Amino acid sequence: MARTLYDLAASNPELRFSPFCWRTKMALRHKGLDFDTIPWRFTEKEVIARTGEGRVPVLVDDGRWVHDSWQIALYLDEAYPDRPPLMRSPPERAMARFVSSWCDQVLHPILRSALLLDIYNLVADRDRAYFRESREKLVGAPLEAATMEGSAALKALTQALQPAEATLNVCRWLAGDEPGYADHCLLGSLQWARVSSPQPIIIGSDSAVGRWFERMLDLFDRYARQTPTVSGGALDLHLAPAVGQG
Amino acid sequence: MARTLYDLAASNPELRFSPFCWRTKMALRHKGLDFDTIPWRFTEKEVIARTGEGRVPVLVDDGRWVHDSWQIALYLDEAYPDRPPLMRSPPERAMARFVSSWCDQVLHPILRSALLLDIYNLVADRDRAYFRESREKLVGAPLEAATMEGSAALKALTQALQPAEATLNVCRWLAGDEPGYADHCLLGSLQWARVSSPQPIIIGSDSAVGRWFERMLDLFDRYARQTPTVSGGALDLHLAPAVGQG
Repeated sequence: MARTLYDLAASNPELRFSPFCWRTKMALRHKGLDFDTIPWRFTEKEVIARTGEGRVPVLVDDGRWVHDSWQIALYLDEAYPDRPPLMRSPPERAMARFVSSWCDQVLHPILRSALLLDIYNLVADRDRAYFRESREKLVGAPLEAATMEGSAALKALTQALQPAEATLNVCRWLAGDEPGYADHCLLGSLQWARVSSPQPIIIGSDSAVGRWFERMLDLFDRYARQTPTVSGGALDLHLAPAVGQG
Repeated sequence: MARTLYDLAASNPELRFSPFCWRTKMALRHKGLDFDTIPWRFTEKEVIARTGEGRVPVLVDDGRWVHDSWQIALYLDEAYPDRPPLMRSPPERAMARFVSSWCDQVLHPILRSALLLDIYNLVADRDRAYFRESREKLVGAPLEAATMEGSAALKALTQALQPAEATLNVCRWLAGDEPGYADHCLLGSLQWARVSSPQPIIIGSDSAVGRWFERMLDLFDRYARQTPTVSGGALDLHLAPAVGQG
């Protein structure tokens, strides 16, 4: 077996915080495929130059290079049809695509704002100038000014998570009755905060999303739960019940 | 057959603009069930008092009263298992719940802001004071100040629709390979604007959502397309392609 994943790492190479890499690691575990990870830093563009992109995750599977978390998910289901599918049916594929895009477009701007300084503080020294410059360009302000305060982030995240809360109030998993790629996408987003934040930004566990997150952390021999975190790992979700709208 | 739906109507009783009522009307057509609609105005609370809610849709099916669009969808699949299912599988049910909540939480605040004055202008005279008071309380400002300008609404809507655009770039319907209740939910939201706005707020048709919307309008003998509208019915969606995020 030669299957390796370039996985974004902090100064401490054991800290792995990328939401997109978490999608792929959960997907590989879901398929039951062994893999090694290579810690990769933001500025190591040359190492993955053959992808034509400067971003991870990048999977090298027996010599075949695949990049972009969505493309990797499609590749895994196509290359390993005898393993448990990440997306079992057209509705599940639609749900996975919708949830992955919703994470990118709705949750990530909030989480990014909340975590800017935390991540600046944990990245490798050689990555700091790059991180500051690229993120300040993205958000249009200095990191110190753009970082959202904890209670504001919690309020925005609670509101943004309502579609997941409503869904998990009627379904055990976002993918329906079994976990699927849609679940791995949202796990990745919340794991980003769980790994990076020195203090839990969210307290409580009396929500459907909170209970689901605990189940996700336990999948695959507690794979996501066991990863090192800055804080020791607490991330408790406290959400108000979803409100019916008519 | 005695199956009637209380359906929110304008001063002109032919104008039916409620996004939630559209979900239910599409669901009834999807199931192939005949029904009559009763035009209902915001202030006719007493007519539907037995639901314990002051909102429509309310379905009266052979004497059985069912309210709340999501509950009606569940009821229809349960009461009519031999008819085409609105939600065929647990993943499709999850997708429907997620999309309905996402419409409520993400799209509707934008559409509501864009349409406040248009709807104020079309509701029945007896509804105007109620509409102004309840909406100004909801948005915390006078209708005239809270109404979002067309180009700002277009920009916000384009951004908000990205998860649907990404999904419809890889799937023909939000529910997968056949239209389902998730599709009817988003149709309802866009139909709200299509029926109410005196000018198309969105121009163009070179997007996956735009092409999907045309297919939705053609379902069930062009049911949603044929309804009277303030403008004559144009609502063209012009969205930039979804951008990959890693």
